[in-house]
Amino acid sequence: MGRVSERFPDFPWDTIAGVKARAVEHPGGIVDLSIGTPVDPTPEVAREALIGAADSPGYPTVFGPESLRQAAVDWLERRFEITGLRPSQVLPTVGSKELIAHLPMQLGLGPDDLVVIPELAYPTYEVGARYAGCEVLATDSMDVVGSRTPALIYLNSPANPHGQILGPDHLRAVVEFARERGALLVSDECYLEFAWEDTPWSVLHPDVCGGSFDGLLAVHSLSKRSNLAGYRDAFVTGDQAVVDELLAVRKHLGFMLPTPVQAAMAAALADDVHVTAQRQVYAARRADLRAALESAGFTVEHSEGALYLWATRGEPCRDTVAWLAERGILAAPGEFYGSAGAQHVRVAFTATDERVAAAVQRLTA
Amino acid sequence: MGRVSERFPDFPWDTIAGVKARAVEHPGGIVDLSIGTPVDPTPEVAREALIGAADSPGYPTVFGPESLRQAAVDWLERRFEITGLRPSQVLPTVGSKELIAHLPMQLGLGPDDLVVIPELAYPTYEVGARYAGCEVLATDSMDVVGSRTPALIYLNSPANPHGQILGPDHLRAVVEFARERGALLVSDECYLEFAWEDTPWSVLHPDVCGGSFDGLLAVHSLSKRSNLAGYRDAFVTGDQAVVDELLAVRKHLGFMLPTPVQAAMAAALADDVHVTAQRQVYAARRADLRAALESAGFTVEHSEGALYLWATRGEPCRDTVAWLAERGILAAPGEFYGSAGAQHVRVAFTATDERVAAAVQRLTA
Repeated sequence: MGRVSERFPDFPWDTIAGVKARAVEHPGGIVDLSIGTPVDPTPEVAREALIGAADSPGYPTVFGPESLRQAAVDWLERRFEITGLRPSQVLPTVGSKELIAHLPMQLGLGPDDLVVIPELAYPTYEVGARYAGCEVLATDSMDVVGSRTPALIYLNSPANPHGQILGPDHLRAVVEFARERGALLVSDECYLEFAWEDTPWSVLHPDVCGGSFDGLLAVHSLSKRSNLAGYRDAFVTGDQAVVDELLAVRKHLGFMLPTPVQAAMAAALADDVHVTAQRQVYAARRADLRAALESAGFTVEHSEGALYLWATRGEPCRDTVAWLAERGILAAPGEFYGSAGAQHVRVAFTATDERVAAAVQRLTA
Repeated sequence: MGRVSERFPDFPWDTIAGVKARAVEHPGGIVDLSIGTPVDPTPEVAREALIGAADSPGYPTVFGPESLRQAAVDWLERRFEITGLRPSQVLPTVGSKELIAHLPMQLGLGPDDLVVIPELAYPTYEVGARYAGCEVLATDSMDVVGSRTPALIYLNSPANPHGQILGPDHLRAVVEFARERGALLVSDECYLEFAWEDTPWSVLHPDVCGGSFDGLLAVHSLSKRSNLAGYRDAFVTGDQAVVDELLAVRKHLGFMLPTPVQAAMAAALADDVHVTAQRQVYAARRADLRAALESAGFTVEHSEGALYLWATRGEPCRDTVAWLAERGILAAPGEFYGSAGAQHVRVAFTATDERVAAAVQRLTA
């Protein structure tokens, strides 16, 4: 038997340990803009719900309480005009990474199946496909798919790493393509709350999906929306038959969210105030960092949404990462996300105001 | 592609919905002794640690902090005389069910591989094997394995469902057999804190493993030990190379424990006082229920350890389940755990004192 770990690329973050060590040596300390981990406090509303459910001796269910799933439905309708979704179409997941990593396997895909991922993409789309032994095609153009019949097509808007937002016409065209081919379209919408220069659309919006969720899944995470990366709180929703099958499989496989974490998720989904406040905080950091990068000679592309600036100095990305590390700033090499990112770096603006100010000062010095 | 859910048996608990409805109708209410879900409070020490880590905006790691893994090492040494284990050999898991369900797949096993499970067993051993397409052999006798070379052998002592405790000679013989065949031996030790009539042994005890962890994994859960089923807190430990591979795979697959849950696990592992108190509570419930079952004509077999009474009336188990349901008592059909359980029921003694007293009253009326 081959080792499963060999199916995957090197765990990418391990490959920047060297430049990270260099950044740490900066007399003003490292400004870590690489992973994009949230640093602002977990909102009170989520913490209180977690604390209120601290006495949880018994087994949770994989499906979770209907109140939790209803909170997801209500949020999607309130914020993104998604109508007609039922709580039975919502399945909580232990963060969105485990869902994406396991989706091809849990749907029974294998070596005969093709998974289409964006040309520049969150690495876990490919990890999940490789885990199941699927073929992977990285393209943003359905023309490149040609006459083939993919089993799964991933979309991600606003996109990691480059922040592009896809408009409703584009989304609608991919929905139609997927339905014609009988492919499952999975839309990773974990940055939907964070748009800066355009309006983001869910694939489940009636103007995109035509009022039917057939063949569609949307993946949502509270990690960024509610500073809950430490809680592992996400959900998948859409096509009832696919959700039913995932629930059946995941009950056997034991994907239960901790009860206190379920409570926090329901409470956080019911509140928009903390999201609005967090969005303003990120907008200010984004504006400052963007101006500083541009003044230092970087070109920022896309970045209409999500929590990253997609920046280039027209040189190999590892050189740019090293240049930044000499200034104590750690960014992610664009090549983590696909060969099209070979000359870009991804700069997260999730660090504290103090750390962002330090980066700005170093870039503009 | 075949549906993955079809690889698995019916989710067993769904098949007792009918008798459960009957038990619920009892004028004194249901006494649910089926799943064995803990009902006593989550210990203060775990709740305080969860609450103390409620502000957790950032991403946790799959490996978790060394302090958590050291707490596991210290507990195993303090309680079960396991010496020589290092924190690098401990991998936290989101409960033990997901680990067991995914272990064959994460180790790259497939249709050419044989997984040996106990004749009467927790169903997830087979689920995990079927998920990876492995052949399953249910036997307690290595003689039945014959000249074959299993990839994986499961042990579970104290055992679910029947509570049997395996002595060091038996464990040592299976360790030797597994090592001769090059099989990985996985010992599910999640009931090791609960022994009533015999001394339980870890497969990692030097008298069993000979001071080497090669080819051995032990799985531990805090669900029962610390009334933490709602937190999803467990770990696997043993052979360094296997733990390293699981860590590498599980980093890609996103098996992170929530940060507050990691904190609760470390705190709970450092405390034995709550476990001693809980053990006394269970011992009293066990004695009362056992006497009541015997007075009602049941024969109780094994049940030296774990949190169950393995009882029979010498009739098909579904008849016994129905007989109990008429008295408002819900038990698990023995056939959930293997055909050898066709005439047994598994009676958990994890219900409250009040509910156990109600069951005793109904059985002895």
